[in-house]
Amino acid sequence: MSEEKKLLDNVDCPADLHDLDDAELQQVAQEMRTYIIDTIGQIGGHFGANLGTCELAVALHSLLDSPRDKVLWDVGHQSYPHKILTGRRDELPTIRQYGGLAPFCSTAESEHDIMGAGHASTSIGYAVGLKEAMGKGIGEDGRVAAVIGDGALTGGVAYEALLAAGGLQTPMVVVLNDNGMSISPNVGALSRYFNRIRLNPRLYHAREDFEDRLTKLPLGVGRRIERLGPEMKAAIKAYWAPGLFFEELDLAYMGVIDGHDVKALRRALTEAFEAERPVVVHIHTVKGKGFAPAEENGLASMEEWHAAKPNSIVNGRPTAAEKPVPVQETDSPEGIERLEKPPAPGSPPQYTKVFAEAMVAEAERDGRVIGITAAMAGGTGLQKLADERPEQYYDVGIAEQNGVLLASGLALQGAKPVCAIYSTFLQRAFDQIVHDVCLQELDVTFAMDRAGLVGDDGPTHHGAFDISYFRPIPNVVVMAPRDEAMLVHMLHTAIAHDGPAALRYPRGAAEGVEIPAQPELLPIGVGEVLAEGRGVALLGYGYGVHVALEAAAILADHGLQVTVADARFAKPLDGELATRLARDHDLLVTIEENVLPGGFGAGVLEHLEDAFAAGPGERARVLRVGLPDRYVTHGKPDLLRAEVGLTGQSVAERVLAATPSAQPIAR
Amino acid sequence: MSEEKKLLDNVDCPADLHDLDDAELQQVAQEMRTYIIDTIGQIGGHFGANLGTCELAVALHSLLDSPRDKVLWDVGHQSYPHKILTGRRDELPTIRQYGGLAPFCSTAESEHDIMGAGHASTSIGYAVGLKEAMGKGIGEDGRVAAVIGDGALTGGVAYEALLAAGGLQTPMVVVLNDNGMSISPNVGALSRYFNRIRLNPRLYHAREDFEDRLTKLPLGVGRRIERLGPEMKAAIKAYWAPGLFFEELDLAYMGVIDGHDVKALRRALTEAFEAERPVVVHIHTVKGKGFAPAEENGLASMEEWHAAKPNSIVNGRPTAAEKPVPVQETDSPEGIERLEKPPAPGSPPQYTKVFAEAMVAEAERDGRVIGITAAMAGGTGLQKLADERPEQYYDVGIAEQNGVLLASGLALQGAKPVCAIYSTFLQRAFDQIVHDVCLQELDVTFAMDRAGLVGDDGPTHHGAFDISYFRPIPNVVVMAPRDEAMLVHMLHTAIAHDGPAALRYPRGAAEGVEIPAQPELLPIGVGEVLAEGRGVALLGYGYGVHVALEAAAILADHGLQVTVADARFAKPLDGELATRLARDHDLLVTIEENVLPGGFGAGVLEHLEDAFAAGPGERARVLRVGLPDRYVTHGKPDLLRAEVGLTGQSVAERVLAATPSAQPIAR
Repeated sequence: MSEEKKLLDNVDCPADLHDLDDAELQQVAQEMRTYIIDTIGQIGGHFGANLGTCELAVALHSLLDSPRDKVLWDVGHQSYPHKILTGRRDELPTIRQYGGLAPFCSTAESEHDIMGAGHASTSIGYAVGLKEAMGKGIGEDGRVAAVIGDGALTGGVAYEALLAAGGLQTPMVVVLNDNGMSISPNVGALSRYFNRIRLNPRLYHAREDFEDRLTKLPLGVGRRIERLGPEMKAAIKAYWAPGLFFEELDLAYMGVIDGHDVKALRRALTEAFEAERPVVVHIHTVKGKGFAPAEENGLASMEEWHAAKPNSIVNGRPTAAEKPVPVQETDSPEGIERLEKPPAPGSPPQYTKVFAEAMVAEAERDGRVIGITAAMAGGTGLQKLADERPEQYYDVGIAEQNGVLLASGLALQGAKPVCAIYSTFLQRAFDQIVHDVCLQELDVTFAMDRAGLVGDDGPTHHGAFDISYFRPIPNVVVMAPRDEAMLVHMLHTAIAHDGPAALRYPRGAAEGVEIPAQPELLPIGVGEVLAEGRGVALLGYGYGVHVALEAAAILADHGLQVTVADARFAKPLDGELATRLARDHDLLVTIEENVLPGGFGAGVLEHLEDAFAAGPGERARVLRVGLPDRYVTHGKPDLLRAEVGLTGQSVAERVLAATPSAQPIAR
Repeated sequence: MSEEKKLLDNVDCPADLHDLDDAELQQVAQEMRTYIIDTIGQIGGHFGANLGTCELAVALHSLLDSPRDKVLWDVGHQSYPHKILTGRRDELPTIRQYGGLAPFCSTAESEHDIMGAGHASTSIGYAVGLKEAMGKGIGEDGRVAAVIGDGALTGGVAYEALLAAGGLQTPMVVVLNDNGMSISPNVGALSRYFNRIRLNPRLYHAREDFEDRLTKLPLGVGRRIERLGPEMKAAIKAYWAPGLFFEELDLAYMGVIDGHDVKALRRALTEAFEAERPVVVHIHTVKGKGFAPAEENGLASMEEWHAAKPNSIVNGRPTAAEKPVPVQETDSPEGIERLEKPPAPGSPPQYTKVFAEAMVAEAERDGRVIGITAAMAGGTGLQKLADERPEQYYDVGIAEQNGVLLASGLALQGAKPVCAIYSTFLQRAFDQIVHDVCLQELDVTFAMDRAGLVGDDGPTHHGAFDISYFRPIPNVVVMAPRDEAMLVHMLHTAIAHDGPAALRYPRGAAEGVEIPAQPELLPIGVGEVLAEGRGVALLGYGYGVHVALEAAAILADHGLQVTVADARFAKPLDGELATRLARDHDLLVTIEENVLPGGFGAGVLEHLEDAFAAGPGERARVLRVGLPDRYVTHGKPDLLRAEVGLTGQSVAERVLAATPSAQPIAR
C-alpha cells in the first residue's frame, strides 16, 4: 500500500462522506478497493463481490444518514466496503477470524449493520418490514434501501417480498446489484432477462422521464407517435422501458446505471429516494472490479476470484503460486469455503471431492441418477457431474425449494434425483421434504455437505440442525458416513433405496481411508461395532465416530479399553445395537455434530426408554455429546469444536470424570 | 337430482370423453357441476373452487390421455371434477371422510392423481421435473399440464419453478386458473396485475397470432405501423400482449381464455400443447360458477362458499338455515376448516375465535402489536384484527416465508409482530425462523393454529411436527396452552417476552373455561401441577393436558389417584418439575399431539438423563404418548385420535397395563 495520506483515512463514519464531492467520493471508493485487494489478498475472504460494491457503498452512505437511514446488504458477503465506511476500517484484517469481524453483517457488531444474514434473498422482506413499521410511527423514521444481487433475486422469498413491496406501495429502494454472473448460465430465465436489458444500449435512462423524451424525438418521429394516440405512446414506452417485469408488479424501475460511477449512482439514488414509492434501481457492476486477474478473463475468472486465499495477492498482484480458490471449492454467491491450501499429495481428500466423484460414478452406472444443486455447483462438487454428464445435472439457482420439487417431479417419473444442498440451505426446503418427498414417499436422495460446524462462515452457515429436522419426518432414511469410504457406500445405498434418504457429511478433509472401487449396499438401520471394550461405550454418528475414535485412543492411554461403535443410521436407529451397548456397559456416550435437542443422542434416549420398559435402572446412563443449544460463532472448525467440547480430548475428559476408578487425564 | 339419463353416467374414465364433441363436453361439465352442488351441498366439502374447474377438467381430459399425459392440480382442492372424470364419480359422496376419498389429490388413490399435495404452489415444480425426466427418456413420454390458481402463484416456490421452466424451456403447459380472489385485495401486486389484464377487453387473444393481426389493422393503421419499422411493431405488440410478466421469463403466454367455454379451452390448450415450449394459458373462471348464491354477491359471497357445510344445499338451493361457513371459519385457498355447526350458545368457543379476540385486545393495548397472516385471515381469526384495526394487520398472501421476514423487519424497528400461521404451513418458513428470527433474536411471536391432527384435510395439513422443528432452535420460547384462558395468557406472555416465542393450539373447540378479563404474564419455563397423586404422573403439553385430565378421571374410577401436571413450556422445559415428577413417581407419562421423535417427550427424556446423572435407576420410567412416526390419514379428529391412541381412554389403559396392581379397565 502506498504511504501517502488517503481520503479514506479520514472516513471513520458515514457522516464523514457527506461533505465530499463526487470526485472525492469516487476517490474514496477507489482507495477502499485497493485496501480490500491488499487486505483480503493477504488474509483471505470474500473478494470479487466486495470489489463490485465500493462505489455503491460510498454513494449510499454519502446520501444517507446511517443508522437512522438503513442499508440492508443481502447475504452480506458484499458488505466489506460498508463495514469499512462504518467505523470498521482498521478491523478489516480480522474478518472471518475467531473473535474478529463477522463474515457477513451482524447486528451485534455495529449499529450500521441493520440486519444479520448469510442466506440469500432476505433483504427485501426486511426492508418492507422496517419501512412499514416506520410508516406506523414505530421507531425513528428514515430511508430504507435493500441491496440485492441478481442471483439472490432468483430466491422465491425475494419474489414474495417484491410482491409485498409493490402491493403495499412501501416507499423504499431496492438496488438490484447486477453483475450478471450469480447463477449458472444454462438455467434461470431471470438472468437471460437481465442480459437482454443490459445488452440494449437504448435503455440507459430512467423510465420516469421517458414519455417526455419520446415526444421530443428528432426527425418528426415524436410527432408521428403523438398522432398515433396515447395508447401508441404508451406502447412504445412499454417496449423501450426495460423494467416491465418490475413495473408489472407496481414497482418503479430505473436502470441500467453504471455501478462504478459514483456520480451516476448518487443521481439515480437521490431520485429513487425522492419518489416515495417502491423503486428498483438496477445497477450494473463488475465482480472483481479493479483487480485485473478477476476482470480479465470473464466469467470463469471472476468466479474463481469470488473468494481469495490467504497470501494470494501481494502489492495488488497475484502471488506466484496464485492459483485462486479452485472452482469446486467456491460456492458463490453464498459463503466461501476452504480457503486452506489444497491437500498435499497423499493427504486425505475433501469429502466434497469424494462425493463429486462418487456422483459421477453413480450417474455413469445408472442414467436415471440426476444431480441437483442450488447455485452451488462448486461448493457441492456437482460441477464435476455438470462437466462430465451435463444431461444428468441441474442447477436451479438459489432456489432450494424448487430444487427439491424438481427432484420430486423427476422421481415421480422414475428418475433417481440427488439433491446436493448444504445442510444449512436445505432448511429452506423443509416443507418440501415433509410434504412433497416424504409424505409422497418419493425416491429422492439428499446429500448434505457442510453438516456440522463449517468454520469461518459462522452461525448462518453451520449445519447444526439437520439431524433434528430430519428425524421427526416419517418414511425417510437418515444416515451419516464416518469416512470417505462409507460416504461412497451410503450414497450408493441412498440412491438404491426406493424412497427418501438423506446423508450428511462435514466440510473439509476426510479420514484418509481407501476409497472402494465398488460401492456396497449397506443394510438399512444397521450400525457397526468398531472396537470392543468394557465399562464405557462410545456411539458415534458421522463425524462423531471420528471424535469417538480419538477419545478411545486417549482413554486407552489411561488404561480404559472402551467400546466404539458407528451408528451409521439416525433413522431407523439400530435399536438392537443401542440396546446391547446400554445393557453391557455402565456409560454410553453418544457423539454427534448437531445440536443436542432432538438430535441423534435424543433418538438413542427415545429408543432406550422404550426398550428398557421394565425400568431404566438396567441400562447404562447416557451422556450426549454434541453442539450446544445456542448459535456458535465463526472461526476455524478446530477452534470451534474445542470451544463446544466436540473433540476426542474433551470426550475423554468427560468419560474419565464419570469413571472415578480411572487415572486422571494428562492435560 | 333429475332422474333422466346423463352423459356423465357414461364417463368412467377420461377416454370416455375422447369421442364427444364440444357441445357434449360442455354438457358433461354442466352435469358434473350439478352433481357436485348436490353432493357437496349434502356432505360438505370444498365447493366454490370445484365449480370453477368443471369445464377445465373436461377440456383437459378430452384432449389428453391420462395417466400417460399428466394433469397436476395445484393444492388439489379444485380437483373434484378431475376425480369424477377419472373413475371416482360414484365415490364422491365419501370425500374427506375417514376411509373415503382423499380431500386433495393422492397418488395412492388413483393413477390419474399424478402428484399429491395440500400445500399450495408446488405443481409447476413437479411439472418441470416430470417433463424433464421424459426428455431424458425416463418413463413413458407424455404431455404435462400444471393447473395453478392466481393465489398459489404468489408463493415463492411457484416463481422459482417458473424461472426453471422458462430457463430450461421445458415443453409444458401451465394453466393459470384465475378467479381473481385468492388473495386479499389490499396486498399482492400480482393480483392487481391480473386484474389489469382481465379488465382489458382487447386482450382476449393469444399472442402468437398477434403480429399478423397487427399489420392487418383497418384504416391504414397497420401500414402506418409497418412504416415505423420492426421495433415499433414489436413495441406495440409488447403493449397489447398482456403476458409480459411471463414473456420476460421466456414463457409463452396465451390469454385470457373464458374458463367456462369448453370449446375455447380446447382450442387454446391444443395450441399450447403443440407449441413444444413452456406456455402459460391464462384462463378466467368464476369461483362458485353455476351456484347462484356463490356467484351473486361478488367476492364476499364467493369466499363464504369456498366450502359448503353438510346439508347446506338441497335441490341446488341453500337450505333455510343455509348460512354458509362463516368467513372466519374458512381458510381459502388452502384447506377447509370447521364444517361443523357453530358452537351452541354456552358451549366452548373455538380456539381460533379466542385467539382472534385476544389479538385485538393486545393490539388495542399496544400499537406496536401487528398481526400477520399468509392468506388465512379467516382460518387464523386475524380477520377480526383486519376489520377492527387494519393498521395493525398484514396479509402477505400465500407467502409464509415473506410473512416471517416481514415480521423480522417490523421487529427490527421495534414493532411486536405476531405471525399467525398454521403449524403445517409454517414449515415453509423454517429457515426464516432459524436464520432470521432466532439467530437474530428478534421479537417475533408465532401463533400456530391447527397444531396436532386437523381432521378432514388429512396428512398434508396435520400440525404434527412443530414441537420437533422448534425445539432444536436456540433462543426461542416454545409453549402451548391447555385451555382458552391459558391461550390468552400465553399470547400476552409471548408478545411481552423480548425475543422469539412460539405457541401452538389445536383446531376446534376449547375447553369451556372462563376467559380472563386481563391476561397475565406467565413465568417463562415454569409448569404447573394440576392434581397431586401417587405412583403415576401424567405430564401433558397443550392438548396433551386435556388427554391427561381425561385419563386421570378414568384412572380415578379404577382407584388410581395420579398426579397431573401441565408443562406449559416445551422450551425452556420446567426441568425442576420434570425432575420432581420423575423422582416421586414410578411412571411418568408425557402426552403431546406431535410426532414422538424429537418432540416434547423427547425433551423430557433429554432433561432427565442429564438430571439423573448418578444413574437412571433413581427415576420413574417414562412412557411417551403422542403421534406415531408415520403420516396420519384424514377423518374426524376424534376418529384419528382414537386410531393413534391419543385419548384419555387409551392413556388410561396403557397406565393400567403398566401398573399390575391396579384393577383392569372396563372397556
